Amino acid sequence: MAKEIERKFLVVGDEWRDAAAGTFFRQGYLSTVKERTVRVRSKGGQGFLTVKGISVGATRAEFEYEIPIDDANEMLDSLCERPIIEKTRYRVSYQGFVWEVDEFAGDNAGLIVAEIELASEDQEFPRPSWAGQEVTDDSRYFNANLIAHPFKAW
Amino acid sequence: MAKEIERKFLVVGDEWRDAAAGTFFRQGYLSTVKERTVRVRSKGGQGFLTVKGISVGATRAEFEYEIPIDDANEMLDSLCERPIIEKTRYRVSYQGFVWEVDEFAGDNAGLIVAEIELASEDQEFPRPSWAGQEVTDDSRYFNANLIAHPFKAW
Repeated sequence: MAKEIERKFLVVGDEWRDAAAGTFFRQGYLSTVKERTVRVRSKGGQGFLTVKGISVGATRAEFEYEIPIDDANEMLDSLCERPIIEKTRYRVSYQGFVWEVDEFAGDNAGLIVAEIELASEDQEFPRPSWAGQEVTDDSRYFNANLIAHPFKAW
Repeated sequence: MAKEIERKFLVVGDEWRDAAAGTFFRQGYLSTVKERTVRVRSKGGQGFLTVKGISVGATRAEFEYEIPIDDANEMLDSLCERPIIEKTRYRVSYQGFVWEVDEFAGDNAGLIVAEIELASEDQEFPRPSWAGQEVTDDSRYFNANLIAHPFKAW
């Protein structure tokens, strides 16, 4: 089990876009109960099953397992809660830190968020100009909640 | 993904008990929604994460993955819905077929059920005298429901 410490920001402008191609993700949920979310994800030919506990500040328990891509696709197509989340993930370097920028599609089109993973909750990091409002603790932006309440309906 | 066809019976008497020791199971659920149950199980030093779809007759979709035992125990201790199910499983041979007999403990003490796995829904099999009432389609006996409504409270 790993503890995951992440901070999340809304993205403003297009300066973050670089030449690197993004990776297309499909992800869905077998449980969106916040105490125990269970996520199915396919990305670039790989499948993953991820269990997360409840967040305590920016920290939460996480267990992730690689599974056969065919299993992941079958669960996404027939078992997961509807709708599935689809997004393209870009990895963007900024002054020695790597950010993950997620540009959503489908029912969440128009939403772009950037996440940075930290070693501790109080770790300092340089903040790029395209990292706008911080939404780490805003539950509307949790992927699990973007299913029941997608961005286009806000 | 495997399709699982099982029939389940209440057990009567003690004739099924043989010399073989049973294996102690602990299991809990990350989702008990019937369209997508997610089970965590530890047994004899091994951990498993199992995803099941909704039952259509005696058939349901099942995906099972072995996970580190420490992960399974941590999820059982801190993430799964309460209470955890605890039971001892015995494998009992009868005229060429192997039955799994589950003797429950804790909040479900007193309940003993026997399951047989079949290749098709209409496969014939010899029925031992200790296999009593069939409860295959009785949702009260689904493991997921034995958490919210344990046997001792019936």
